[in-house]
Amino acid sequence: MKIPLNENFKNLSRDYLFAEIDARVKNCKQKNPQKEVISLGIGDVSRPISPSVANEMQKCALMMATKDGFFGYGASSGLTELREALSSYYAERKTVISPTEIFISDGAKSNLGALCDLFGDCEVLICDPVYPVYLDVSIIHGRRVHFLRASAENSYLPMPDALPEMPFLIYLCSPNNPTGAVYSRDQLKKWVDFALVSGSLIIFDVAYEAYVSNKSLPRSIYEIEGAKKCAIEVGSFSKMAGFTGVRCGWSVVPSKLPVYEMWKRRQSTKFNGASYLSQRGALASLLPRGREENFKNIEYYMENARLIARFLTRKGIEFSGGEHAPYLWFKCPKNMDSWTFFDYILNGAGVVGAPGVGFGVSGEGYFRFTSFASREDTEKALELLDKII
Amino acid sequence: MKIPLNENFKNLSRDYLFAEIDARVKNCKQKNPQKEVISLGIGDVSRPISPSVANEMQKCALMMATKDGFFGYGASSGLTELREALSSYYAERKTVISPTEIFISDGAKSNLGALCDLFGDCEVLICDPVYPVYLDVSIIHGRRVHFLRASAENSYLPMPDALPEMPFLIYLCSPNNPTGAVYSRDQLKKWVDFALVSGSLIIFDVAYEAYVSNKSLPRSIYEIEGAKKCAIEVGSFSKMAGFTGVRCGWSVVPSKLPVYEMWKRRQSTKFNGASYLSQRGALASLLPRGREENFKNIEYYMENARLIARFLTRKGIEFSGGEHAPYLWFKCPKNMDSWTFFDYILNGAGVVGAPGVGFGVSGEGYFRFTSFASREDTEKALELLDKII
Repeated sequence: MKIPLNENFKNLSRDYLFAEIDARVKNCKQKNPQKEVISLGIGDVSRPISPSVANEMQKCALMMATKDGFFGYGASSGLTELREALSSYYAERKTVISPTEIFISDGAKSNLGALCDLFGDCEVLICDPVYPVYLDVSIIHGRRVHFLRASAENSYLPMPDALPEMPFLIYLCSPNNPTGAVYSRDQLKKWVDFALVSGSLIIFDVAYEAYVSNKSLPRSIYEIEGAKKCAIEVGSFSKMAGFTGVRCGWSVVPSKLPVYEMWKRRQSTKFNGASYLSQRGALASLLPRGREENFKNIEYYMENARLIARFLTRKGIEFSGGEHAPYLWFKCPKNMDSWTFFDYILNGAGVVGAPGVGFGVSGEGYFRFTSFASREDTEKALELLDKII
Repeated sequence: MKIPLNENFKNLSRDYLFAEIDARVKNCKQKNPQKEVISLGIGDVSRPISPSVANEMQKCALMMATKDGFFGYGASSGLTELREALSSYYAERKTVISPTEIFISDGAKSNLGALCDLFGDCEVLICDPVYPVYLDVSIIHGRRVHFLRASAENSYLPMPDALPEMPFLIYLCSPNNPTGAVYSRDQLKKWVDFALVSGSLIIFDVAYEAYVSNKSLPRSIYEIEGAKKCAIEVGSFSKMAGFTGVRCGWSVVPSKLPVYEMWKRRQSTKFNGASYLSQRGALASLLPRGREENFKNIEYYMENARLIARFLTRKGIEFSGGEHAPYLWFKCPKNMDSWTFFDYILNGAGVVGAPGVGFGVSGEGYFRFTSFASREDTEKALELLDKII
């Protein structure tokens, strides 16, 4: 085969974080077959799908076997009812998004990858540490990446103050994975102002917006004036409704943006719509009963977060997150590096977490716990950690 | 916004075929509100999903609401059981494909778009007319496209005989959309030999392989020796199991290809797996009961195809397809151009088809009927056409 390949793939680092975690856990279990291992590292939800959502999907599955209920190709942008329901979801927070500006997808990760197609040779701005997908998709597209350090000094919320006034493609995630930090309205306003002045575009990831309980904190970038001229938003039913396996998400691309028509064309050409069953389930998750059931699950996870937060506080470990996000981010005790602390708690307590360095070089020496385990496991893990920290 | 955009989008022609069809049908109905319009133009299946497949998906939906049945993130490459079942599906035809060479996706269109990421600045070879996605995704990626004309002279099966010996990214579709033509083993062998000699890569689209009933015709390019060194295959449950709305497909990327590891990395970075429900449904469609039920639907469509074929033969209209494909392709009578014939049968008989020019410039003067309508509609459409052709 002599076809020129995409050489940018060579610049990707190995996709090894969770593979390495699995390997070390396996090794530990081989040495101590009796040992129970509890994971607070997992980034996946554990609570079952809400009954009303599951019922809608099962009804839909059966309908598909009937002449009148069969549903074939839908619009690549998604079911009108679902786009309207999301528009109402935004409207509750006084954010005006037309259903025609909402595009249903099979999830945020696919969307973040797909959006790359819209741009040419551009400069990318990414916070560090952060969800590794922003960096990896930018590398695949051969883009120059600039990092903004998130640290205790800036409360893990980098600001654009010192940036040169030039157009960047900016990835922001709030509530943040992995730090759990959330931008305030004033802070986001500064980002929007910077984008407008510099000609930048913000890709705003709100995968965890449903975890924000303080009403003064923004859950969408469109709560900030001017954002419709400089921001695309990517949302997901994964953590909001337990859809990590069901697959459904959305993007908001305002009609004022020059990429609006391009995005429609991109999606109708390289995508054929999310699964009808997933979309019906997503719709049910936005109805009052679905909302109530999902809220209970989020409350459950956030009670875990409070337990972990209380533990860290008691141990004198400063942390970020856990209040409006399912993630808690902290500096490893005794200046251990990320993997040393990983091994320390795995071998000493049988507890697994995510080494911060897996989220970027600035994450070295940090660690992430998640609140997605069961209550029992979370409590037990903290008891075990109590003996060694 | 001053970010450089992907200027290649400007080279796309308007995505207008089905929009234009809809507009003309609407216009016709406005003029004659009483008029009934039957479509033989639709490229979507109409038969309900098989009961055993629907049952599996509804069971799966309910399981998702239970603690033990919940399923979150899966491997981006898909469920092991489904990859194994597809491996067995290939093995029935003595084609050895390892489950690790099979990647589950949300459909062929997404896969065809995603595969573009693997290549650099390459020369693309596309048959004309053909499924417009190959051309459009190549344009989005800024690639130079060369066309090979499919015509009655080559039985709509272009061959590589006159091609320069240089590496191309070659898109082939067999059974073909829109012409319904199917490559023989000998013909495919010539394509594989050309690819091996020239260093080309073939992307082989088998979305309609389940419609091949003649066992001497290849249903996979891997039935040809050497193909694992020069071909990627893209398959789909859409037309095989009625999954146009459910969304599930697959790609085969042989481990011998230099893009194998790249594809794994691409899919784990820009994709998060197909819906668990869709994958469970796809798995059920490959079990004996699902296969039997799907076969009945395919037989139903192919009986429609036989009716259309008989009609065209009786009218002295030469056509291609309809034997191992749900499509029938023919030259418009009286040398009408594609849209003139479209209007002629719409206004004269209330029958809708797909103008051949929508599939490429070489399709001008041609027309496509599909066999996806109901038997009643197909019979009625032919009766109405009988009066004006």
